[in-house]
Amino acid sequence: MKLSQLFGMRFKETPADCQIQSHILMVRGGYIKNVGNGIFSLLPPAKRIVQKIENIIREEMNKIGGQEVLLPVTMPASLWKESGRFDSVKSELIRFQDRGGNDMVLGMTHEEAVVHLARNTAQSYTDYPFMLYQLQTKFRDEPRARGGLIRVREFTMKDAYSFHTSQGDLEEYYQRCYEAYQRIFQRVGLPEVIAVKSDSGMMGGKIAHEFMLLTEVGEDSLVICDACDLRSNMEVAECIVENADAADAPLECVSTPGTKTIDELCGLFSVGAEKICKAVMYRKSESNASVVVFIRGDLEVNETKLRNFLREEIHPDTDTDRDDVVYGFTGPVGFSADATVLFDRSLENTHNLICGANKADFHYKGFTPTRDLTHSPEYFDFAKTYEGAICPLCGKPAITIRKGIEVGNIFQLGTKYTSSMNMQYLDANSELQHPIMGCYGIGVGRLMASVCEVRRDGYGPIWPMSIAPWQVHICAIRADNLQVRETANKLYADLLDMGVEVLFDDRVVSAGVMFSDADLLGVPVRVTISPKTCTRAVVEVSARDKSFKEDVAVDDAAAFLCRLVDERLQGK
Amino acid sequence: MKLSQLFGMRFKETPADCQIQSHILMVRGGYIKNVGNGIFSLLPPAKRIVQKIENIIREEMNKIGGQEVLLPVTMPASLWKESGRFDSVKSELIRFQDRGGNDMVLGMTHEEAVVHLARNTAQSYTDYPFMLYQLQTKFRDEPRARGGLIRVREFTMKDAYSFHTSQGDLEEYYQRCYEAYQRIFQRVGLPEVIAVKSDSGMMGGKIAHEFMLLTEVGEDSLVICDACDLRSNMEVAECIVENADAADAPLECVSTPGTKTIDELCGLFSVGAEKICKAVMYRKSESNASVVVFIRGDLEVNETKLRNFLREEIHPDTDTDRDDVVYGFTGPVGFSADATVLFDRSLENTHNLICGANKADFHYKGFTPTRDLTHSPEYFDFAKTYEGAICPLCGKPAITIRKGIEVGNIFQLGTKYTSSMNMQYLDANSELQHPIMGCYGIGVGRLMASVCEVRRDGYGPIWPMSIAPWQVHICAIRADNLQVRETANKLYADLLDMGVEVLFDDRVVSAGVMFSDADLLGVPVRVTISPKTCTRAVVEVSARDKSFKEDVAVDDAAAFLCRLVDERLQGK
Repeated sequence: MKLSQLFGMRFKETPADCQIQSHILMVRGGYIKNVGNGIFSLLPPAKRIVQKIENIIREEMNKIGGQEVLLPVTMPASLWKESGRFDSVKSELIRFQDRGGNDMVLGMTHEEAVVHLARNTAQSYTDYPFMLYQLQTKFRDEPRARGGLIRVREFTMKDAYSFHTSQGDLEEYYQRCYEAYQRIFQRVGLPEVIAVKSDSGMMGGKIAHEFMLLTEVGEDSLVICDACDLRSNMEVAECIVENADAADAPLECVSTPGTKTIDELCGLFSVGAEKICKAVMYRKSESNASVVVFIRGDLEVNETKLRNFLREEIHPDTDTDRDDVVYGFTGPVGFSADATVLFDRSLENTHNLICGANKADFHYKGFTPTRDLTHSPEYFDFAKTYEGAICPLCGKPAITIRKGIEVGNIFQLGTKYTSSMNMQYLDANSELQHPIMGCYGIGVGRLMASVCEVRRDGYGPIWPMSIAPWQVHICAIRADNLQVRETANKLYADLLDMGVEVLFDDRVVSAGVMFSDADLLGVPVRVTISPKTCTRAVVEVSARDKSFKEDVAVDDAAAFLCRLVDERLQGK
Repeated sequence: MKLSQLFGMRFKETPADCQIQSHILMVRGGYIKNVGNGIFSLLPPAKRIVQKIENIIREEMNKIGGQEVLLPVTMPASLWKESGRFDSVKSELIRFQDRGGNDMVLGMTHEEAVVHLARNTAQSYTDYPFMLYQLQTKFRDEPRARGGLIRVREFTMKDAYSFHTSQGDLEEYYQRCYEAYQRIFQRVGLPEVIAVKSDSGMMGGKIAHEFMLLTEVGEDSLVICDACDLRSNMEVAECIVENADAADAPLECVSTPGTKTIDELCGLFSVGAEKICKAVMYRKSESNASVVVFIRGDLEVNETKLRNFLREEIHPDTDTDRDDVVYGFTGPVGFSADATVLFDRSLENTHNLICGANKADFHYKGFTPTRDLTHSPEYFDFAKTYEGAICPLCGKPAITIRKGIEVGNIFQLGTKYTSSMNMQYLDANSELQHPIMGCYGIGVGRLMASVCEVRRDGYGPIWPMSIAPWQVHICAIRADNLQVRETANKLYADLLDMGVEVLFDDRVVSAGVMFSDADLLGVPVRVTISPKTCTRAVVEVSARDKSFKEDVAVDDAAAFLCRLVDERLQGK
């Protein structure tokens, strides 16, 4: 393709409303254009990259026996009513009515559609296992679209669904898919992606992994142990704390006028926050019922763990206008408000703490749970883990917290959808069973943006050869010079003949404009042809990643470039 | 792929609610599954066909300089308000609100989105011409989805948009696209598709062509001249009639009690319907104002032509409860009702007709327009042409009417969208201009179904090699026989090694089941391996289209098949 014909504009200025580098560079380079909140059009260079990513995904899905299908974007709501998600999913799901007044939804994920497709087809155990996948547009009405293609509302997703007759078979396939995902991330140029255990959220099921690209601009917090293999999403990471031995002291109610915050209490009593038992109040979103979590003062509540424990949606209690709770002075001793009372594991084996006295301007000191509570509480893990915490796997205090972008996820779904939607097969004993499902997603556009985020310099993306929009970029400096033009034209034609994907900058513009455009387009191999190189009968070949630059004789250039592209495609 | 692993079910029974053969066969063959009204999932064989069709379309679009992009399915309504279509398009357009209460639409076509993408990019005349295209999901809330994938609500479409600085440049590109379309239909196996002139409908613009596959199950009526090149959609076909000379007679009001229909009048007066001047009543949909069209009694009104003439939506007037019109006895002489009065060209130079007298139970006879009307009317072409009518191009009475499926369309849009959405560029004289657009569509799923409709026999589709889901289908009859199994396994492996796409029926089922499944899957080349063929050290190679059947030595089979596939791919 000739650059003079390429649709799109490249420019220097940082566009408004772009916070992260991949977003800035993809707008500046003419890859994407914002159409609405979280909705983008892809220009030709982005479309080319996406297509290569999709083909890599296809190859890896086919390798593990996946069969490509196409499920609809729009669905009758009846399918989502069958699964229960028409009600359980809130405003992320777009609902509309068609001209006949029928309820419809926009697919944000396709468990319902794939079960609909499979349920009258795979009726015998001999039809199992199988895996179906698609590359399809989805819409999820995200409250906070951000970061260009990193978090959008409309996106292309590869979603795959596997069906099994036993948990063991699912687990075996899950592992194969896990490995296919590792190959996919490797092949698109992100070998550093790690898999972490995750929360299965609204998908249902228990075991789930997210594939995470570690980067400061990521939205997810990841818990990584420096001493062992532990990798976990913060949302599900167990928090292990140790409490130092401490002598008991008598429980004593003391006046603490106006002292409401942990910091103030620490100051007043000259203790660390770990010597305080704090109360964190929530409401159940459906019923508005109160929940109080007692937890060590230096820790935070992990709301996902609390939500999963309660199996209910919750939100922080901001309504401080109740009679039965003395906000700011709430404590477990004598707490009598109408609420679900929970104790975090961090309070187990604690002695001599400060806690609220459920009376305005009073706290207890000397609180020792085992001694001072009428009913000895059950402790559960509700705390957010933290930098330096103890690893639940190896026991060493080696937890670090990192930020990451989720570039893929895999779930063991179980029979959530096959039972609610009544998909059954006859097993070897002629008994009806619900198949067991797994599901596996990759957001294609987000993956492209993630590569851009970590494979770039200050001037533009550095696309890996496997997904680069073009493989070789010819810059003809002074294309108005006959010799330059002829050399460039011939090389362009030769490379096209050899099947190399070439972008040829044939414009009569300055070298500066040419190079900054080439940097923004991020093609991995660049060939510069100028009056100077022509007098020496060479072309200058350089790598976008600056790993080399060398002169190659004009006559050898096509073969040299063809070999170079092949080598890079093979990851050499 | 082994057939034992292929997802999907094939069966014999005609499924309920399927009227046309392509629909029946694609359901019976495990290609498609209905999800809701006009919404389908595609199973693996259909997905494979669709992908091949898409790649053929891509190649041809790229050949004429097209650049692939991806525009969003969901769009802010603001874009459609800019173009005016948020109001002008009725219930075909799905409207919804997002969680923030913003008006959104589902893309049913993408002129707005592509102008949004291009308008800040192509600002100089030197950026023109260019063509952008995409393969993307669309939703159109059709009132009458039917025929499987022939008329659906959700569909994958290739839509392309070209931008030009002169009408001449558009016309030249339009011709290139016209030829690319001919190549596409040729390559997918439908060389008989013809281009007809068409109405541009809601798209705006003037010149438009539809690419039509002639078949009895088509929904469109096409006007074809057997004597010359004329091909036109009925909607826009000119109707030419000749009126035989006739002597004038005096205008006379005669009693015709209860005689309301043309047939009754013909009987009463012993004349042909061409001697009657009939009145056809319409209402303007917006204002409810009346429109009456006077036309020769043997002809019908073409509502599209009437609509285009009035530039308003109209519908037949069924409200016969008005004082100023005497329904059944309406005629042009003394017609005084509040209505737009129009005369069809078929009444020009007529003499001595019968027409209503605007008085219950009375008609005039001897009506001669030039003599009996106070103002001599202007005549326009509102009539539907008919079998045997005069061709407007060559003048011969050689018009035939055929049914067809629209498999593609191309439009010269003009500046409808670039002016309403204010897309401008600076021309060579530094003056601002609106670019001129063309647009070009192909429905991918409909194209697949159309091929099935005309390339089939009573047992299943006969896919052309270029789009077949697989190229070779191996039937191993008695796969439990060691020699059969080994021969089939080796041929399967050899063909895969040679890059042939093979479907291998490895199931232990009867020959009958195997062959009827093979017929439904429609793979163009079949290889049968049985104990009998094995004893003779041959395999039986046959064509799905029954064009040949021959025995090939086992050792030569792979090379033979590979050559056969290549030949068919090259259209030999």
